[in-house]
Amino acid sequence: MLAPVKFAEFVDTNADKFIQRLADAVAIPSVSGDPAHREDVVKMAHYLNSQLISLGVTTELRDLGKHVMDGQELSLPPAILGRIGDDPKKKTILIYGHFDVQPANKSDGWDTEPFKLTVHSKTGRLIGRGSTDDKGPILGWLNVLEAHKSLGLDLPVNLRFCFEGMEESGSEGLDELILGEVKKEKEGWFYGVDCVCISDNYWLNDRTPCLTYGLRGITYFQITVQGPARDLHSGMFGRTVHEPMTDLIALMGKLVAPDGKILITGIDEMVPAADEEEKTLYTSLDYSIADVEDAVGGQIAISADKVTVLMGRMRMPSLSLHDIEGGAGARTVIPAKVTGKFSIRLVPPQTPEKVDPLVVKYLEAEFAKLNSKSTLTIECSPGGKPWVADIKHWNYEAAIKATQAVYKQQPDLTREGGSIPVTLTFAKSLGVNILLLPMGRGDDGAHSTNEKLDRSNFIEGTKLLGTYLYEAAAIPA
Amino acid sequence: MLAPVKFAEFVDTNADKFIQRLADAVAIPSVSGDPAHREDVVKMAHYLNSQLISLGVTTELRDLGKHVMDGQELSLPPAILGRIGDDPKKKTILIYGHFDVQPANKSDGWDTEPFKLTVHSKTGRLIGRGSTDDKGPILGWLNVLEAHKSLGLDLPVNLRFCFEGMEESGSEGLDELILGEVKKEKEGWFYGVDCVCISDNYWLNDRTPCLTYGLRGITYFQITVQGPARDLHSGMFGRTVHEPMTDLIALMGKLVAPDGKILITGIDEMVPAADEEEKTLYTSLDYSIADVEDAVGGQIAISADKVTVLMGRMRMPSLSLHDIEGGAGARTVIPAKVTGKFSIRLVPPQTPEKVDPLVVKYLEAEFAKLNSKSTLTIECSPGGKPWVADIKHWNYEAAIKATQAVYKQQPDLTREGGSIPVTLTFAKSLGVNILLLPMGRGDDGAHSTNEKLDRSNFIEGTKLLGTYLYEAAAIPA
Repeated sequence: MLAPVKFAEFVDTNADKFIQRLADAVAIPSVSGDPAHREDVVKMAHYLNSQLISLGVTTELRDLGKHVMDGQELSLPPAILGRIGDDPKKKTILIYGHFDVQPANKSDGWDTEPFKLTVHSKTGRLIGRGSTDDKGPILGWLNVLEAHKSLGLDLPVNLRFCFEGMEESGSEGLDELILGEVKKEKEGWFYGVDCVCISDNYWLNDRTPCLTYGLRGITYFQITVQGPARDLHSGMFGRTVHEPMTDLIALMGKLVAPDGKILITGIDEMVPAADEEEKTLYTSLDYSIADVEDAVGGQIAISADKVTVLMGRMRMPSLSLHDIEGGAGARTVIPAKVTGKFSIRLVPPQTPEKVDPLVVKYLEAEFAKLNSKSTLTIECSPGGKPWVADIKHWNYEAAIKATQAVYKQQPDLTREGGSIPVTLTFAKSLGVNILLLPMGRGDDGAHSTNEKLDRSNFIEGTKLLGTYLYEAAAIPA
Repeated sequence: MLAPVKFAEFVDTNADKFIQRLADAVAIPSVSGDPAHREDVVKMAHYLNSQLISLGVTTELRDLGKHVMDGQELSLPPAILGRIGDDPKKKTILIYGHFDVQPANKSDGWDTEPFKLTVHSKTGRLIGRGSTDDKGPILGWLNVLEAHKSLGLDLPVNLRFCFEGMEESGSEGLDELILGEVKKEKEGWFYGVDCVCISDNYWLNDRTPCLTYGLRGITYFQITVQGPARDLHSGMFGRTVHEPMTDLIALMGKLVAPDGKILITGIDEMVPAADEEEKTLYTSLDYSIADVEDAVGGQIAISADKVTVLMGRMRMPSLSLHDIEGGAGARTVIPAKVTGKFSIRLVPPQTPEKVDPLVVKYLEAEFAKLNSKSTLTIECSPGGKPWVADIKHWNYEAAIKATQAVYKQQPDLTREGGSIPVTLTFAKSLGVNILLLPMGRGDDGAHSTNEKLDRSNFIEGTKLLGTYLYEAAAIPA
């Protein structure tokens, strides 16, 4: 079943209206990780909810309870559950997305105001926090609904929606919500769901669409070294006491080599080496060292070998050192207490449960070798397990056909380096196939400064989402 | 010549008034390192200037020109030159102090508002930024002047003052001012100065006064590692690119060992080992491991051996890692550009000129070993050379006698770990003996949170400064 021609025409004709909708959404600074913006996340939930209702979706705002952030007890922003269509002859597809965003301040290095969508006149880039992660994709679904409502077209499948506002802050409360709904069986919002579609990742490059069938997991650590009761004058106490910053930097320097190899005993070793057949998969992807260097804006690829770089992203764990907090700034003092932050991206068969104890053991052993009198505290926030899907399922077949129809290209089939923990929750609790169908490109800069979504990805991406529904409806299950 | 009894009596009687004067001074947040507080430094200069004038001192506020801070061009705060007494039969003593302070925010961990002097009712501690560094000592001199004016007493010596407002920010403009005055010979403010007294350091412990005859120098480095054009999502790019934070931490981890040994080739080696006779000097000082641990609030002494700890502070160089800036905070990104900050305290025969090239060479060699494609930039801000004075000079003899008279104790003769670059400028340009006569204790927490000056150190310290003038006047030059 091909999507009706007038659907695509409607999307083209209404492109400017859709971009204005994205501008309205970006203007709400729904930063879930900052208590000062919590009300904005709630505001974003209500904005999205009223849009869904106006487009014919039955919704429910679900209270997820409270949590503690930065020492404050806060109400979690509500999640949105939605449904449209209950035809038992149609397939039912569950759409997931998130309406919260990463923090952004112009002073971080943005060229434009992060919460004001800027349309670059020459490149067509739609620049703003959340443009690609993940407001653009969510609004793509609203665009599809609007097209069908305006044109008086029936949707080819039944749709269910699950939109959350805490994805960038550990998806707190979401697992409980999903598991609760699944437990209700026929009474639950997810009953009868045949597959899941998530648009929260990116093409491998900036020219070839892709479908993603695997994700890395993540586990996050904060390690704190504490010594004196307060910051000390480095002239008076330098070479007199053990300095926490010296110890912390020594410890963090033992976690990962400059070439990306993880030095923590047993982590890299947990992953079986790729055989020649697996390596062929990576050779065939439309990807070059120039792509990664374009995407990151620097000639800093970890290897000149494409397969090594792709495997580093898709099938190897990675350890990134994020920050050291508590430092002296411009003061020449010995900081009293410093905290290092790092995370490890995990691949099968790694899980936080298997990896975290190895990290703790290694940190403690290496700290002991320093013979420091400072104290070490290790905090661990397990994120998600890694995930891999069956790419022979009709869900993938539909997405491949839709990509061919809209983009006239064969999509790359990729595993992705990032982590979307909800993927695993859906996979385990619903027991259905999950498709990651990205809207944005590899150079979009999600989580970074100058985050953008190309206009063509927003508009053609909207067509892709709609067309995917028709293709899914057409394939015998 | 003993100080008149009524001088000490006046100081005791007027203690509360003197403390109020300190509270007034602390209330002006004269942070020289923050452009937002530049006007406060200027305000502090005017406050101090009017106090000096009211106490009979002839002054001049000297414009030191402009400089650039945080990308802004700013006027430097004026320095204050002052003179009282021109009797050719009397000695002439030059007093130096600084009226600017280190940054302080309650959120740094202060128990009280840093710019509101808090008098602790039980301990008598005067808590506030600048209380001990260096507003308390400067006001000690004002107290001495006030006592003499009120009592109708002549000062036993001629005094010259040089007070600056940029000490915590590299004393910008001060060297030019001093050298310019010296060049004017008879027409200059420092003509005829017989010795210098600086109160800008601390006792070794919290019970025995000390005189300080040596200081470490300092040189300061900022090293920046830059890779991608912007922060990168660590899921998408972890193990795909060289990460600047990994490289920077690897590099900073190669500078100093947890036991304080400097790993940069040739730095520690530049300092001759102490012979047994020198070690005896340190053995005799009133100092214990418990003292350093009390002062820092933790059992973190670098050695259980008192002499090792004292030599680490007084006659060995030290390297402290201060901060890494540009990190990701709570975001799981790969920071694009990170800057590490560290400084090295220098001892004879080290100078910034000798040390800096070794540091740069070592950093570049170690960075090359990382085989990273990131780029390294090294910025160096040479501070001051180390300094050692002749303790047999009458200037020291006077201070020893004054300490015995006021505190009924023999002062420790120490070298200090900190750096006061102006000491060296005075030493070289005036060619006279310089005495460091501290007012505060070793646990005052200069540069740190909860900085304090004990009430007794402020009051007895005021008596010490006055008594020192009488003793200096009495000794034949």
